[in-house]
Amino acid sequence: MGTVNLVQLAKALGLSKSTVSKALKDSHETSAATKERVKAMAKELNYQPNPYASSLRKHKSKTIAVVMPQVDNNFLATAIKGIQMVAHQREYHVLLYLTYDDPEREKTIFNVLKSGRVDGIIISTVCTDDDMEHIKEITDLGVSVVFFDRICESFPTTKVTANDVESAFQAVEHLIQQGCKRIAYMYVLQDFSIGKRRLQGYLQALEKHNIPVDESLILRCDQDYEGNYQLLKSLLNSPNRPDGILSPVEKMAITAYYVCDELQLNIPNDIKIISFTCLSFASLLSPSLTTVVPPAYEMGEKVATLLMNSLEKKKYKLYNEEIHLPATIIERRSTALMQRI
Amino acid sequence: MGTVNLVQLAKALGLSKSTVSKALKDSHETSAATKERVKAMAKELNYQPNPYASSLRKHKSKTIAVVMPQVDNNFLATAIKGIQMVAHQREYHVLLYLTYDDPEREKTIFNVLKSGRVDGIIISTVCTDDDMEHIKEITDLGVSVVFFDRICESFPTTKVTANDVESAFQAVEHLIQQGCKRIAYMYVLQDFSIGKRRLQGYLQALEKHNIPVDESLILRCDQDYEGNYQLLKSLLNSPNRPDGILSPVEKMAITAYYVCDELQLNIPNDIKIISFTCLSFASLLSPSLTTVVPPAYEMGEKVATLLMNSLEKKKYKLYNEEIHLPATIIERRSTALMQRI
Repeated sequence: MGTVNLVQLAKALGLSKSTVSKALKDSHETSAATKERVKAMAKELNYQPNPYASSLRKHKSKTIAVVMPQVDNNFLATAIKGIQMVAHQREYHVLLYLTYDDPEREKTIFNVLKSGRVDGIIISTVCTDDDMEHIKEITDLGVSVVFFDRICESFPTTKVTANDVESAFQAVEHLIQQGCKRIAYMYVLQDFSIGKRRLQGYLQALEKHNIPVDESLILRCDQDYEGNYQLLKSLLNSPNRPDGILSPVEKMAITAYYVCDELQLNIPNDIKIISFTCLSFASLLSPSLTTVVPPAYEMGEKVATLLMNSLEKKKYKLYNEEIHLPATIIERRSTALMQRI
Repeated sequence: MGTVNLVQLAKALGLSKSTVSKALKDSHETSAATKERVKAMAKELNYQPNPYASSLRKHKSKTIAVVMPQVDNNFLATAIKGIQMVAHQREYHVLLYLTYDDPEREKTIFNVLKSGRVDGIIISTVCTDDDMEHIKEITDLGVSVVFFDRICESFPTTKVTANDVESAFQAVEHLIQQGCKRIAYMYVLQDFSIGKRRLQGYLQALEKHNIPVDESLILRCDQDYEGNYQLLKSLLNSPNRPDGILSPVEKMAITAYYVCDELQLNIPNDIKIISFTCLSFASLLSPSLTTVVPPAYEMGEKVATLLMNSLEKKKYKLYNEEIHLPATIIERRSTALMQRI
């Protein structure tokens, strides 16, 4: 069955386009009889309002873009669920774009979005504070942008993150309490806001416990699995190897497990591992993994709610503020005290 | 910096809208000098073409919808990556909708999409063959629909799945070769095409090896974690408990691990487990999990490519066909032969 547009519907009814349009919208300017006749014919002819014509008139697309580095990662997948739940309730459409941690791809996506396809954007950026011209340009065009997890600190808008400084601090302090003296910190792509903040928490914990900073224990990792594997292997093979590791994402913790397996290092006796992750079955790893769990779902709900509030009502503004939701540490075997094997 | 639309740009240039439009499109009807003047002014005034106006003219939105039951599952997240990669290369926009395994939500989404927001839809359906009126209605409106993974078998379009019958057959045969005689099969939401096909493979393997079917070993699971946990626990507590389990998704395998842990059943000595999953670190579970791995990324690429081909070129039609990509079995400790503990 085909569809008709407004012009065809009006023609079939012998009415003007504007009368038909008003009748369909239950305008008080149209009589009840006309409304009924118009609606019956609309149904009969399978009239479908065109969303693009409608967004052209209203300058509202009821569509937001979610721009994420990845989707196959439990933290981001869970956050997307939270965003989607709010979008569904508030009848928004969500365009999903993946940058694969490539700043150029992020810029290409923003360039495409400049044309007005969306009302707002939720971005977990792979660009740094000195490389955010593309974000500025799109907000200049009237598109609202909010940051999620990976942010540009100096950009004047709302940012929702976990409490990265505090939770890294607590994670390192946990390792220290379990007896670690040489704690390694892995960070993926050193320029991310989040990596820097967790580094800050790491350094604060060492300072509080009078442990000198050893630069060789701060590993600068990238997206190359094999490269990270070799980097970590060489560190764990060195005479002064670490006795604890803080991993920023599950992928890096898994890498550490594989390296320890190859080098026959026992977790937790030879080395203890704690990782940021939303992995639901960290307890089933061998050994079970101690985790720092950011509230991914709630973070997704929060950022989507703030963006949609600002799009819909003048009284909700996007303040230049950071909202930190607290992560939770769950202790498991990978950071247990020395055990008999 | 604000933007101008076509009308404002034409006014600033003192030209007609159609002349400006042609110049911007490098029409041969416009002189080189005019083109240059128009483009310079467009740049100066920050003219942005409106995508909705453009899609209104062309009846092409260059947008597809991906409708999935979930996103926080390694199989679907990996498939979405494959779809996104093709969309990026071919400059399509991807709207992501989640149904959370709720048929009503799927119908609501299709109803919204009827208005012409997308050119095509990739759906992993939660509806059955006798409940697909919503899909028929949208294809009647000219929107192309292709199925991914969870399909309506009788719907005349292209469907991309893994080779579910064969791979379930191979998985069960693997358990039999490892010594299992009482093999349980869990299926989530019994009406899914995929659950039925895997059941078919399960039954074929039993038949080939002359193992009688025991209905009590076929567990009908749903999305309720606690309910599934109790269902499996009661089966594993029964006098005639199974000695092997074929799990359809990682979530169910994880449930089985937890139940075995509570009942102090040793995997693989007391019971062997094999599961469909794309989990990248199944080897790190305790014990490492034998997996049937569907080619999720390739399946996503394939279904997106077929859909976009059909949207762009008349010569690529969406045939009424099923395309099965082969899964791979990776043997690990959870199905190993009896071992000394």
